[in-house]
Amino acid sequence: MNKLSREVAIIGIGQTKFGENWDLSFRELGIQAGIEAIKDSGIESKVIDALYVGNMSAGLFMDQEHVASMVMEEVGLADRQVPATRVEAADASGALALRQGILDIASGHSNVVIVGGSEKVTDVTSDIASEFIMAGADRAWEGLFGASLPSLFALMARKHMHDFGTTREQLAQVAVKNHYNGARNPIAQFQREIDIDTVINANPIADPLGVFDCFPVSDGAAALVLCDMKTALEYCNDPVKIIGTGQGSDTISISNRKDITTIRSTVKAAERAYEMAGIGPSDIDVAEVHDSYTIAEILAIEDLGFFGKGEGGKAVEDGETALTGSIPINTSGGLKARGHPFGATGIAQINELVLQLRSKADGRQVNNVQKVLAQNLGGTGGTSLVHILEVA
Amino acid sequence: MNKLSREVAIIGIGQTKFGENWDLSFRELGIQAGIEAIKDSGIESKVIDALYVGNMSAGLFMDQEHVASMVMEEVGLADRQVPATRVEAADASGALALRQGILDIASGHSNVVIVGGSEKVTDVTSDIASEFIMAGADRAWEGLFGASLPSLFALMARKHMHDFGTTREQLAQVAVKNHYNGARNPIAQFQREIDIDTVINANPIADPLGVFDCFPVSDGAAALVLCDMKTALEYCNDPVKIIGTGQGSDTISISNRKDITTIRSTVKAAERAYEMAGIGPSDIDVAEVHDSYTIAEILAIEDLGFFGKGEGGKAVEDGETALTGSIPINTSGGLKARGHPFGATGIAQINELVLQLRSKADGRQVNNVQKVLAQNLGGTGGTSLVHILEVA
Repeated sequence: MNKLSREVAIIGIGQTKFGENWDLSFRELGIQAGIEAIKDSGIESKVIDALYVGNMSAGLFMDQEHVASMVMEEVGLADRQVPATRVEAADASGALALRQGILDIASGHSNVVIVGGSEKVTDVTSDIASEFIMAGADRAWEGLFGASLPSLFALMARKHMHDFGTTREQLAQVAVKNHYNGARNPIAQFQREIDIDTVINANPIADPLGVFDCFPVSDGAAALVLCDMKTALEYCNDPVKIIGTGQGSDTISISNRKDITTIRSTVKAAERAYEMAGIGPSDIDVAEVHDSYTIAEILAIEDLGFFGKGEGGKAVEDGETALTGSIPINTSGGLKARGHPFGATGIAQINELVLQLRSKADGRQVNNVQKVLAQNLGGTGGTSLVHILEVA
Repeated sequence: MNKLSREVAIIGIGQTKFGENWDLSFRELGIQAGIEAIKDSGIESKVIDALYVGNMSAGLFMDQEHVASMVMEEVGLADRQVPATRVEAADASGALALRQGILDIASGHSNVVIVGGSEKVTDVTSDIASEFIMAGADRAWEGLFGASLPSLFALMARKHMHDFGTTREQLAQVAVKNHYNGARNPIAQFQREIDIDTVINANPIADPLGVFDCFPVSDGAAALVLCDMKTALEYCNDPVKIIGTGQGSDTISISNRKDITTIRSTVKAAERAYEMAGIGPSDIDVAEVHDSYTIAEILAIEDLGFFGKGEGGKAVEDGETALTGSIPINTSGGLKARGHPFGATGIAQINELVLQLRSKADGRQVNNVQKVLAQNLGGTGGTSLVHILEVA
């Protein structure tokens, strides 16, 4: 069917700083982001009908499942027994929570929904975290044979370099651009610029990827308030309308895919979102994409149709994806510089796009932003979600 | 709003045997249940628009997250990149998956959805499993101080005995009844009857609860096929209509609740489901409830309104909840005897009720079943879901 029975809008956003937030627990992160989103929306919490939480691995990181119930209590919704639902698709959990919130409102069941994403990673050491991250890919058929998440993306990078002539410098330029943008984002984890040499000469992680080609260890939470369009117009003058939502899945292991330079789940999620919105890639003004590794951003901008197959590396090199380019990508700094607290990332992407649509992205604002797109990936592409927004 | 824009029906069910399925992996369990549900429904898998998977803790039990992508691949839906979503609310994950499937169809986005629940527990030893199960309650404020899941339910049992005169024998009778029913269910984990003395004299777990008051360690999977009513009538003559869905949450820890002899999340979930269905407790002919511990069944039959507060124990003693009673409860054998593979339980409950509605529950069939109810609980009640079904 690929349509929704009711229009859905975003009326408020909230977010913690991303980074090594040693002093904040999972609960505290959730409270900060949730309360800020509620305040930004202008609603009272008593009108909230449901809560959705995107979280990747609280079970592994904190020995704690059932976190939606916990967050619901912390943001003060326990007295009304507000339904609280956790969804998970590795590091695409945030966008998945958004999608379930959209479907809940479109179904006619809820009017006002709060959607959050959160992850507390620094309760474990970073070597243990690296191990746990592999739970988003295929543990039995990849992890047990020694593959790590960066090594799987390194395979994709090597193949892309081989097939299309993508260069090490082009990969590095993704990180350079995202750090440039992050330096202009006051809630980014890394607010400093880096140069290409720094990326290329950094400690190797999985050849050709070095430490600056990879997302950092981040704690953080992000939240937003969704409602049906009629309710939205009661609370705010500039609601952001969700005009497309698309989700696609693929095999969890990359060994069962015919082609590792295309993420089919992203191609299909984008196709579904564009179809629902009735637009195409050339209509998008700004996009946040899932640059867990530099190669992932190059694959994303091709799979989303912004550039032809194999042309992503050159587009980055030519500055097409820079703030002043034809399609600015990851104005927030992306996963690389804004940070990547897994479950929070999909919501943080949306929050940045809402700021761009509201012309409130300060030093990184793009001119005349009308339509924006977010793409959030789980693991190596077992899940991908694409959302398209515009000012209502 | 508490209504749905479209009517939703169940047209097929499938289930593995529950128990210590040493020879079956998580993937194999999912395939068995999923393929059986698809076959039972008469649909071809190419019409499936989405997949929802309820799973509690694959991260802890198997070091594997992102299991919806994995299951989607195994049941042959990867080539179409069918959206696959995992939801989690501890051992209420199964019913939560059902609810998200219902909302997806009601939203107008999907027509045919496959909903599954699965858990593979026996890859770890039972002492480790017991530890992991506590992740569904409050790890930081209960688990770290030594509380286990049975000890929290034992507190509820003691308080119920103190406040209402509920007896040890009444608790035991829940297990006796459920084993009696399980002995008549060919897919139950325990197909043998037990007597009250066996329950009371069993090894103690957390006073007053003994080993026969507690659910067993189970692997298993269950699945069902959902669709909008128009599509349902194309495929089958006897679709089962979902007339009520209700979800409620409460504080994840029991220490923050004013009353531990009432599960507020269940009370509210039931209220919402009854309201949507336009009926009350006296209209229900058969119910499957969450008897993770014997006391939990007594709380459930009170919280669902089948019996007054404090009268649950006596109702069980009087045979009101037996197969021949006024409201037969857990005809399948319940979590106690059918087994409790966490994420699968909420779907298994529905499958039993579909059999009762189809008059195919053989040796445990109740006469003239028109309306049925399922209640699925997460942890100690941080989440509760209630669904009400009838023959369309």
